[in-house]
Amino acid sequence: MPVITDIRNAVVPISSEIANAYIDFSKMTASVVALVSDVVRDGKPLIGYGFNSNGRYACKGLLEERFIPRLQRADLGGEIDPSRAWDAMMANEKPGGHGERSVAVGVLDMALWDLAAKVADVPLWRLIADKWNGGAAKDTVFVYAAGGYYYPGKALAELQVEMQGYLDRGYRVCKMKIGGAPLDQDIARIEAALEVVGEGRNLAVDANGCFDLQTAIAYGEALKPYGLFWYEEAGDPLDYALQAELARHYDGPMATGENLFSHQDARNLLRYSGMRADRDWLQFDPALSYGLVEYKRVLDLLPEHGFSRANCIPHGGHQMALNIAAGLGLGGNESYPDVFHPFGGFADGIAVEDSQVTLPDCPGIGFELKSALIETLRDATRT
Amino acid sequence: MPVITDIRNAVVPISSEIANAYIDFSKMTASVVALVSDVVRDGKPLIGYGFNSNGRYACKGLLEERFIPRLQRADLGGEIDPSRAWDAMMANEKPGGHGERSVAVGVLDMALWDLAAKVADVPLWRLIADKWNGGAAKDTVFVYAAGGYYYPGKALAELQVEMQGYLDRGYRVCKMKIGGAPLDQDIARIEAALEVVGEGRNLAVDANGCFDLQTAIAYGEALKPYGLFWYEEAGDPLDYALQAELARHYDGPMATGENLFSHQDARNLLRYSGMRADRDWLQFDPALSYGLVEYKRVLDLLPEHGFSRANCIPHGGHQMALNIAAGLGLGGNESYPDVFHPFGGFADGIAVEDSQVTLPDCPGIGFELKSALIETLRDATRT
Repeated sequence: MPVITDIRNAVVPISSEIANAYIDFSKMTASVVALVSDVVRDGKPLIGYGFNSNGRYACKGLLEERFIPRLQRADLGGEIDPSRAWDAMMANEKPGGHGERSVAVGVLDMALWDLAAKVADVPLWRLIADKWNGGAAKDTVFVYAAGGYYYPGKALAELQVEMQGYLDRGYRVCKMKIGGAPLDQDIARIEAALEVVGEGRNLAVDANGCFDLQTAIAYGEALKPYGLFWYEEAGDPLDYALQAELARHYDGPMATGENLFSHQDARNLLRYSGMRADRDWLQFDPALSYGLVEYKRVLDLLPEHGFSRANCIPHGGHQMALNIAAGLGLGGNESYPDVFHPFGGFADGIAVEDSQVTLPDCPGIGFELKSALIETLRDATRT
Repeated sequence: MPVITDIRNAVVPISSEIANAYIDFSKMTASVVALVSDVVRDGKPLIGYGFNSNGRYACKGLLEERFIPRLQRADLGGEIDPSRAWDAMMANEKPGGHGERSVAVGVLDMALWDLAAKVADVPLWRLIADKWNGGAAKDTVFVYAAGGYYYPGKALAELQVEMQGYLDRGYRVCKMKIGGAPLDQDIARIEAALEVVGEGRNLAVDANGCFDLQTAIAYGEALKPYGLFWYEEAGDPLDYALQAELARHYDGPMATGENLFSHQDARNLLRYSGMRADRDWLQFDPALSYGLVEYKRVLDLLPEHGFSRANCIPHGGHQMALNIAAGLGLGGNESYPDVFHPFGGFADGIAVEDSQVTLPDCPGIGFELKSALIETLRDATRT
């Protein structure tokens, strides 16, 4: 009958001198929570940790004002049950308006799953494979290196050094930002990156939602000859009509979804955006979107729209999504080898080979095997 | 060259023993902000006030963590300019995820408009009519009485007393909740209300987004014979396909939009929900949706989708929306005669006649003419 005895809530900076086409990250923050349980193992209480994925800010106020108090009052039936916790956290919340609170619930959901897997003494990927995937788990997960940000003074040569660094660390597929410079400059950047990564299928580009339709199509026309891995988030994430029209002009693979934070929003993307199951990618980030309990609802929607879990490569580059990818058979996961430290990346000593990574065999999400991350989580939430 | 010298941020309860079909309101809160200026009139600094509309919680953390600091640092060009303030407040926010932060920005936007109108020494409805409507302002605004909530032990006779109270105060059109009881009980409640308000065109019903398609249609079939004023928010606010399918079964007026908080979400409703400009109503609440700066973007979208401002009757029952309705020619405004005190309602001494209300002639939004409200705003933000 495990019980949560204490909930701790902290904010840490994940600021960085990078920028995408929409925002700069110099003031970015992340919430960290710790759920302390009454289960003692090796003389210490089991603790579940959660944090919020990058791109959205820490949600300390929301956690303190609504979601932690509700979780503290919740009756979880003597189990660490993330689904029951979810219902308790979302009680008396009106429908619609899926932003910010989806991050707060996602932080707590991550910590609940970490704790649940630790109580069960299994890795999270194993727990969810057994629970929802007939026990089948992937041995390796496809990962790509997300980078290629804009920052002051960055030249083409530096972009190439960055890309070479990803290849040196075992990545085959790399991603760079577009839309923060004029089209001709972005094309020069793309060609510089391709000199390093080789074929177009090794390079993805990401506009972070900054294009209007005309610009999105102009970029599409210019990108076509390269045969890129994907063309990501051309327009506003809610402008499904733009995405659908762009698909009539660009027949290469496209990707979007990182800024849709509920199954209702995901369903609208599937209904209206003209995304093509035979080539396109869905990037919903479970940590930003009310956690795995809600993400499972998204996965369950896919078949009726002709999509499968193999279409999903979540945004965020966190080990939570990596566990989900392995345990529920997603198409892969994002990775940030050079930014958002220490939240991105994998367990220490896990190597990437040909853009594939293996999962650690450690109870929970695996934070304890990544020394810089677990140190940050423990330091932030130590009383 | 007016300057904001201090920003104060407080939380007040607006709890009530009522419930709709989705949530109970016993723990509902509201944020209150005060923008203190260096403009002194009658010996006192002009202060702009803002608060958040009901149904969404106070957003104290978000205000403190991001939006007040950004507004404090903003260069408004020596004016109280809500549009420039908006850009500063939304800097480094990613697209998508329109919830919670839309409330925080809406609270500050309301206070900015209140202060801007006070500095100009005109009512807000006059300021915005001159700015955006060629000076044309409505003399009276249609208002309806929103009530008919569920609460423990409420019987049909009490619902009738409540409705009679609205008629006694000059309302012709009243609204009640449905979906919190089985269909047959709701029909009995509707018939009881109709005994008081008379014709079906005097009664609106509101399901607060709780129905699945089958239930929405079943209610639609049962409601048809009554010829109601409107059938509101049958399904999830983001389920545009449900709304479109329901429109094929229910040809009476429908209303929705209170839980869509951006022009992108509003545009999706207009694109995909099958709403009919000749009879349906759009209820976007400017206070919950990034304020009037964003609401103006919504209004500007309407014509290309065949709608006009006359289709708009905002949710929220606050004087901010009342000023917008008068100044920009909306179809009307919600009113809560009996709940959410002191935030709803009108200036003291303003009478409702045949569901029409006049606007006060007082600088700003008019809070100073509603004694219980201005006292609450001042008490909450007094240093």
